[in-house]
Amino acid sequence: MFKFEIVKKSQKSMARIGIVHTRHGIINTPSFIFCATKANVKGLTIDHVKNAGTQIILSNAYHLMLQPGSDLIKRAGGLHQFLSWSGPIFTDSGGFQIFSLGHGSVSSEIKGTRFGDRRRTLLNLTESGAQFRSYIDGKIVNLTPELSMQIQMDLNADIIVSMDECTPYHVSKLYTANSMEKSKRWASRSLEEIRMHGRQDSQTLLVVIQGGIYRDLRQESARFANENDFSGFAIGGSLGKTRSEMHEVIGMTTEMLDRSRYVHLLGIGGIEDILEGVNYGIDTFDCVAPTRIARHGAAIVKVKELPNKGQKFINLNNSAFYDDFDPISESCQCYTCSNFSRAYIHHLLRARESLAGSLISIHNIFTMNRLMTDIRNAILEDRLDEVRNDWC
Amino acid sequence: MFKFEIVKKSQKSMARIGIVHTRHGIINTPSFIFCATKANVKGLTIDHVKNAGTQIILSNAYHLMLQPGSDLIKRAGGLHQFLSWSGPIFTDSGGFQIFSLGHGSVSSEIKGTRFGDRRRTLLNLTESGAQFRSYIDGKIVNLTPELSMQIQMDLNADIIVSMDECTPYHVSKLYTANSMEKSKRWASRSLEEIRMHGRQDSQTLLVVIQGGIYRDLRQESARFANENDFSGFAIGGSLGKTRSEMHEVIGMTTEMLDRSRYVHLLGIGGIEDILEGVNYGIDTFDCVAPTRIARHGAAIVKVKELPNKGQKFINLNNSAFYDDFDPISESCQCYTCSNFSRAYIHHLLRARESLAGSLISIHNIFTMNRLMTDIRNAILEDRLDEVRNDWC
Repeated sequence: MFKFEIVKKSQKSMARIGIVHTRHGIINTPSFIFCATKANVKGLTIDHVKNAGTQIILSNAYHLMLQPGSDLIKRAGGLHQFLSWSGPIFTDSGGFQIFSLGHGSVSSEIKGTRFGDRRRTLLNLTESGAQFRSYIDGKIVNLTPELSMQIQMDLNADIIVSMDECTPYHVSKLYTANSMEKSKRWASRSLEEIRMHGRQDSQTLLVVIQGGIYRDLRQESARFANENDFSGFAIGGSLGKTRSEMHEVIGMTTEMLDRSRYVHLLGIGGIEDILEGVNYGIDTFDCVAPTRIARHGAAIVKVKELPNKGQKFINLNNSAFYDDFDPISESCQCYTCSNFSRAYIHHLLRARESLAGSLISIHNIFTMNRLMTDIRNAILEDRLDEVRNDWC
Repeated sequence: MFKFEIVKKSQKSMARIGIVHTRHGIINTPSFIFCATKANVKGLTIDHVKNAGTQIILSNAYHLMLQPGSDLIKRAGGLHQFLSWSGPIFTDSGGFQIFSLGHGSVSSEIKGTRFGDRRRTLLNLTESGAQFRSYIDGKIVNLTPELSMQIQMDLNADIIVSMDECTPYHVSKLYTANSMEKSKRWASRSLEEIRMHGRQDSQTLLVVIQGGIYRDLRQESARFANENDFSGFAIGGSLGKTRSEMHEVIGMTTEMLDRSRYVHLLGIGGIEDILEGVNYGIDTFDCVAPTRIARHGAAIVKVKELPNKGQKFINLNNSAFYDDFDPISESCQCYTCSNFSRAYIHHLLRARESLAGSLISIHNIFTMNRLMTDIRNAILEDRLDEVRNDWC
């Protein structure tokens, strides 16, 4: 059922256009995957998610196994039926959240900046799996690769991810090496579990590439991935401390991978990082940012449409928008820009009406989808630099 | 522009079917008016409000004059343009909130139960108007009938309301009489202000009928209203302490009014009260309840669809719905019931996702519109009792 078709390769970089075929339709790549963490895109009815041009959404096994439980969603007919989405769905393994909550905050650890302040919920880490405490009711849960697969089979997503240890930045190379080796063994167990249930054709398993910032460790992780029958790859783990280090790690990793297979970059989705990633051959991205920043009043636009050149987004909380009757973006055809002004959204933000976040989310989703369309069109004509000038 | 057309009168009661014609289209009466208090129906994009069968929405002059200010909305092109709604809009005068916040909570005062705990914001009440403190920034505002009309002209709603003193329940008959007389003078000033600006044809002014629970005072208020050139009536003020007292006050008041004109009942919208009101000849109702209870997890259904006979609504927070894969209502065609299960909405409530409130709001709006359609059809065939059996 799953097929990854490469439509066109760039002459100038590793960038490529492709089509991912799933049971629930296609994804034109490079593509952005929007987060429906707890089986909903926060504050949005699913018709608005779809009408904003979305092809694929991502739900988190970690959140859903704790509430409402994957068994409940299985009984509901799977995630597609539960949240009423007929297109492709991506789920992760749950490992990422366990380790990021266990070690510190998610982004600070991936980006290597510092340990977060969150209470440690990771209790024990063994060859068998990871023991953690539920943030819902304090119950102790043992997540193994087999259980992660069972959960993802219950959810019945189209693209699923092997369980791995998401290695933090602030550990030794030896720790990273041992962790990467463990992730390989967990990936093999993940694949075996999926095969044992005959799901390898209906649910596409991506193997997570680990190895931190170390070339030789990434190389070994990639060798293992290439030599085994995974349908695609998901680049995970620590990507370094700085943005340039991150781009370097991504670049060296994609070069090591079998180029005929599909590559996802886990949890990264800033516009600059997307453009860099596309150049290195990344096919799909996911990130909570477009909808999270929307709820705080930030709208994504092209560079030339930014009122303040120093900023990355339009901050609609700013009192300058009190009487700005233009849409967020003159060139945008989304539901929000077709119907509402910056002044209206500013008013809703001031009045603490949740509709503000919903309207900006619609705009941001539409805009990210538009960016990805721009990128795909630019790859066809080998002019990705123009897209960068427009958007960064 | 405004016209109220009576299509059919019931043989058994004062109930009637009508059509209210406005610049922005028609309203089939009896009708329910949904609250878009701060220029949005909480948590809903306006397309969902419309697609749920809504013909008319109500915004509050009180909230909008304080934030973002009626002048801003005027500059935006009026309320229709601001919130992107092309159908009829109703605004109230602002008086109701000032007095209810000043005296106590809104519903407790109308229903005569008790004085609320809110901080008194009403500072001074004179012949000229009412002085109150803004809940936004503490600024002192003098609301006069003229200013209320100017605000409602800025907002440019299709149906507007004269400024009145919303008389509380816990006052003497003398206070109620003097207050009703003042409301008459304020209504005259309201009408004069509208006429002076030549808006009497484009914006329909309803006069508020006061007089509390006293027949002679209601009679005098109605006489004044009948003898002056208001396009319709809005029944306001204290309606008594009990539901039966309320029905009595409504019944005696509508009997006093010129039956060729349109009658609105301010702020009342329980299903039983609507059915009672329709029998007494009320044409439109407004109430925040359908969307407010939705945000707390309560869905409106017909009596036979209630799982627990003692309750008035389906409380989707109830753990019984954890694995209930049916829609809220099997017989409902709304967006929510067409796409989502009780189990999904229960999950969203548990996960504190605002989408839960949005989905139930869509259902409740659709359901109230369906109730009103049932009522209109029943009046045609003089079988309102059947509707009562279905819904109460």
